[in-house]
Amino acid sequence: MANTLRIIQMGLGPIGQRLVQYLAQRPYLELVGAIDIDPAKQGQDVGLLSGTRALGVEVSGDSEAVLRREAHAVVLTTGSSLPRILPQLEACLSAGKSVVSTCEELAYPFDDQPAIASRLDELAQRHGVAVLGTGVNPGFLMDALPIFLSSACQDVRAVEVQRHQDAAIRRLPFQRKIGAGLSPAEFDTQFRQGHIRHVGFAQSIRLIARSFGWTLDQVTESVEPVIAAVPTASSFIQVEKGQCAGLRQVGTGLAAGQARITLELEAYLGHPHPRDTVVIHGQPTLRSTVEGGVDGDIATCAMVINALPALLQARPGLRTMADIPLTHWQGA
Amino acid sequence: MANTLRIIQMGLGPIGQRLVQYLAQRPYLELVGAIDIDPAKQGQDVGLLSGTRALGVEVSGDSEAVLRREAHAVVLTTGSSLPRILPQLEACLSAGKSVVSTCEELAYPFDDQPAIASRLDELAQRHGVAVLGTGVNPGFLMDALPIFLSSACQDVRAVEVQRHQDAAIRRLPFQRKIGAGLSPAEFDTQFRQGHIRHVGFAQSIRLIARSFGWTLDQVTESVEPVIAAVPTASSFIQVEKGQCAGLRQVGTGLAAGQARITLELEAYLGHPHPRDTVVIHGQPTLRSTVEGGVDGDIATCAMVINALPALLQARPGLRTMADIPLTHWQGA
Repeated sequence: MANTLRIIQMGLGPIGQRLVQYLAQRPYLELVGAIDIDPAKQGQDVGLLSGTRALGVEVSGDSEAVLRREAHAVVLTTGSSLPRILPQLEACLSAGKSVVSTCEELAYPFDDQPAIASRLDELAQRHGVAVLGTGVNPGFLMDALPIFLSSACQDVRAVEVQRHQDAAIRRLPFQRKIGAGLSPAEFDTQFRQGHIRHVGFAQSIRLIARSFGWTLDQVTESVEPVIAAVPTASSFIQVEKGQCAGLRQVGTGLAAGQARITLELEAYLGHPHPRDTVVIHGQPTLRSTVEGGVDGDIATCAMVINALPALLQARPGLRTMADIPLTHWQGA
Repeated sequence: MANTLRIIQMGLGPIGQRLVQYLAQRPYLELVGAIDIDPAKQGQDVGLLSGTRALGVEVSGDSEAVLRREAHAVVLTTGSSLPRILPQLEACLSAGKSVVSTCEELAYPFDDQPAIASRLDELAQRHGVAVLGTGVNPGFLMDALPIFLSSACQDVRAVEVQRHQDAAIRRLPFQRKIGAGLSPAEFDTQFRQGHIRHVGFAQSIRLIARSFGWTLDQVTESVEPVIAAVPTASSFIQVEKGQCAGLRQVGTGLAAGQARITLELEAYLGHPHPRDTVVIHGQPTLRSTVEGGVDGDIATCAMVINALPALLQARPGLRTMADIPLTHWQGA
């Protein structure tokens, strides 16, 4: 990458701020704009706001003006719901900017939100730019990594991914999202209200299926609490015996009644054996494990930044991790 | 992949024959030609010769004629030395065919054989086709996989790969190539004659370094025998105590006197703990292990076949595993 890539950051919540810290460490990236709707953040230097050095770029609430600046790409971290961020995506693409976003639903919207997917693909192609949803999950551990590992196989019958995390070391919002400290009844209520659940299993399952040429009959998901058998705690939350320590979520892609793709997330305080395991059942069967697991907060932001050079070399349109060049870290 | 890809197989040694078996199992690939210089193979049905069903394609010695057939790509498995296979590569590219080859030196020839690399890149671009060297190693375990795993990292300081194999389960030619059953003096002689050594470390090291933007001062390689402390054996070879059971080969890429990339192959009869481990030292540090290791014979052929669709979507020219779309298995 000989030339500097000019980047605009849109959305300065915790993930957006971490992305600014990371962008500032890459010599080949230059932050040329920052957008947030919060008036309290506007006018501040985005670097200082984000806990890194002053970057000489003020946070603005005027996204139209910032998107008129000369830039290669926008990093968009404003939400998980694709319909809600659609106007922002349209504004970026119409301004001729490629987009990488942590929006989970953007990772593979072709089957569940086909009208939006077509609209984004058409708009991006018309403006000669590319748009991608990525992160650690969806985006890597449960989709792109098993897809890539299958390269070493002559046949694949099924895929299993297990992401087992000790949530005690994660941020408080994550611990809340998995229901740590709730009673089983509260967990049930919050789950039905949509507060407890990892978003992205369906996207990962459909991306794997499309890559492998598998037609799925059904994609199912289940979420259940993990009940503490003994008291446990993080620095934020105390969990008594019988309360929820976190969750176990399983997503399954079925074909002809058989589970072909099984994704399992166990995230709870005090998990005894955190790890990320991918099993490709095939010829040969491969079992790949990252002991201790991949740090989700770091990796989501790293995936976004590391995808920028590959995305800017990809064909215009709505892209996935499976149809851009191999993403990777680069130092210079 | 909606359309069938038409493939020509050039080279029908053990690897070429296994590739024909694998090609015959893929519904989206059609073998339309087969070439070998051995008169004993010419005129035979390539499927029957290769131990699979009759494919209705005769092995030919007339490569010019076969390369005139309508086909998307040639699978080339005729040797490890890039200068020796160069005329064949030129013939394929000039005939307007993309090429995937197991030639180890083709995996990354830009630094060690720059004139050949330029020539191939220019020829492929002129004919609008792409050319790639891949396999399990180089091509995957020691380069593309660590490069892709770095996607989850915000910083990378060093990369280590350990491929530890129990050679007792491999083919006899592999056991001979690692010196199993030789005395230490015979090992030394055969090593100096070039018979004992895995080819591909330098290519993998340079591909990682280019991807990460690292400038290496030096690439070193060492090979030493692993001496049997107790008698050991495969179904082909008996190794007495004090004889060589196999080898340990280490390749290192150094920058400013520091090892940034360290690749280690241990392949000997009776290895107690076969595995493939990648360690990315960085933020975060990732340690990924395939217990038991990846079967080299299957995976090399699978990598070649799985790279075909990605290569045919890549930009024309001399490509590497790091600049084509994510490779993966596909069933339909």
